[in-house]
Amino acid sequence: MAAAAKCSRLGGPLARQLLDSVDSVLFDCDGVIWRGDQVVPGAAEVINLLKRRGKRVFFLTNNSTKTRKMYAEKLTRLGFGASADEVFATAYCSAMYLKSVCGLEGKVYLIGSGAMRQELEEVGIQQVGVGPDLVSGGQADWAAVPLDPEVKAVLVGFDEHFSYMKLNKALQYLADPDCLLVGTNTDTRLPLEGGKAVPGTGCLVKAVETAAQRQAHVVGKPSRYMFDCVAAEFGLDPARSLMVGDRLDTDILLGTSCGLKTLLTLTGVSTLADAEGHRESGCPVRMAMVPDYFVDSVAELLPALQG
Amino acid sequence: MAAAAKCSRLGGPLARQLLDSVDSVLFDCDGVIWRGDQVVPGAAEVINLLKRRGKRVFFLTNNSTKTRKMYAEKLTRLGFGASADEVFATAYCSAMYLKSVCGLEGKVYLIGSGAMRQELEEVGIQQVGVGPDLVSGGQADWAAVPLDPEVKAVLVGFDEHFSYMKLNKALQYLADPDCLLVGTNTDTRLPLEGGKAVPGTGCLVKAVETAAQRQAHVVGKPSRYMFDCVAAEFGLDPARSLMVGDRLDTDILLGTSCGLKTLLTLTGVSTLADAEGHRESGCPVRMAMVPDYFVDSVAELLPALQG
Repeated sequence: MAAAAKCSRLGGPLARQLLDSVDSVLFDCDGVIWRGDQVVPGAAEVINLLKRRGKRVFFLTNNSTKTRKMYAEKLTRLGFGASADEVFATAYCSAMYLKSVCGLEGKVYLIGSGAMRQELEEVGIQQVGVGPDLVSGGQADWAAVPLDPEVKAVLVGFDEHFSYMKLNKALQYLADPDCLLVGTNTDTRLPLEGGKAVPGTGCLVKAVETAAQRQAHVVGKPSRYMFDCVAAEFGLDPARSLMVGDRLDTDILLGTSCGLKTLLTLTGVSTLADAEGHRESGCPVRMAMVPDYFVDSVAELLPALQG
Repeated sequence: MAAAAKCSRLGGPLARQLLDSVDSVLFDCDGVIWRGDQVVPGAAEVINLLKRRGKRVFFLTNNSTKTRKMYAEKLTRLGFGASADEVFATAYCSAMYLKSVCGLEGKVYLIGSGAMRQELEEVGIQQVGVGPDLVSGGQADWAAVPLDPEVKAVLVGFDEHFSYMKLNKALQYLADPDCLLVGTNTDTRLPLEGGKAVPGTGCLVKAVETAAQRQAHVVGKPSRYMFDCVAAEFGLDPARSLMVGDRLDTDILLGTSCGLKTLLTLTGVSTLADAEGHRESGCPVRMAMVPDYFVDSVAELLPALQG
């Protein structure tokens, strides 16, 4: 597709044509099919109709605080017909990454959530570290903190209990050059309704990378592993797959990198001006973040599915 | 001084010549005059003799966990004749920076130590935030955490109680573009004896910068404010001042940037090979980290002072 034709509004016959050209549709969740706990109007109908028309639908999210099962429950509660195996959240994908790509034999030092622990255990990986861990008055020498000799990887995801002691333990484990460093994602903020935000996993990954003086392998979007993970389980053809997301720097970049068709929806983080700015930049790095198409909301796919 | 003559071993008549050419000598502490709680043999004699010969001596450290007074006590305990006003530690310097350079009128949200709180109070700045601060089960919405409306700056130093909640509060304060972001220093690790290390303030600054999506003003070496702070109080002539340190990227770079003479001592972090690597690189950025002279230990200054 020529660069000039990119970032077209998707509507009418073009929408039908696009949907006919794909077998699988991959949706980001927050900002796309829901915002917090509010479903985007029409999103459930779109997804249910896509399935009725024989499309495979998947949910790809960088959020590491929920298991696949927890996501399937939320999807069902909000009116989406969805099963756990359609969900590719970074808690699950990072466990798969450590098991399948890294062939990890050993434990994980986990800076993350209970959901991440569950997904690790689900694939047979033991963890240490989840939950609060603070500097205590009795510990004079932080570098001599007791370590588990079976730990062979540090995994960093969202952790509301992130602390100096956790950062210190990560550094001590990573002093062994054979100990892996993996991050679920590098989103710097979690945007909330009303323009507010709280710190995202990217801040924690950056702190650990700075202490360890090395870069983490990142599992979440825009890392292509998120697509590879779906493709490995379901045999997707990239050329006949569509990535739908609200963020240019994660969702759309993932889609472009993996050779998928891409659709930006304007119910989330990125704006049309952001996309057009990238398109006009002439910079190859930024061009990879220009979507093929955009819609104001995924609900705009409804006419093409109902016709 | 020609580039080729840089990084010479300092000894014999050259040492006497150098000392004759300066009125003030600025010492980094850890790795230079002591290592942890072990004084570098001969360092106390060197400093006491320098003073006896009419030199002004100052102590410049990026460590933010101690007040000037605490440093003066440690110096005295280890045999150095030193008073608090000769100590320029980042706890003190960041308080001075906020007061004198920024003209801060308001409180500081402090990610840091009790010593930093003391130095802020010493110059009349109130703080909130010091001590443990954790996510509590009752707080559902972290972005709605109560803030002190009088806070006009976030100051990040070393904090063993660093936590996700502190990172979050920093982000919420910094959502106001008029709220300042200041870091004591960006050292990524605190090196310990035996090659071990614990995470340094740089990791915490990086986490806050990532969350706030802006860069901190950094007070510590190599920021030239550390020298400006001494110069403002004591009227130093840079050309007649010598910076002595063990780190090329902080001590020596500060000295070069401010037009001081520079001396690397090999009792700490940087090696002679590091310095020579910079010298041979031809890269102007790296050349600024090449010292004029080096010694194995500051004790090598003794003959020139005793003669």
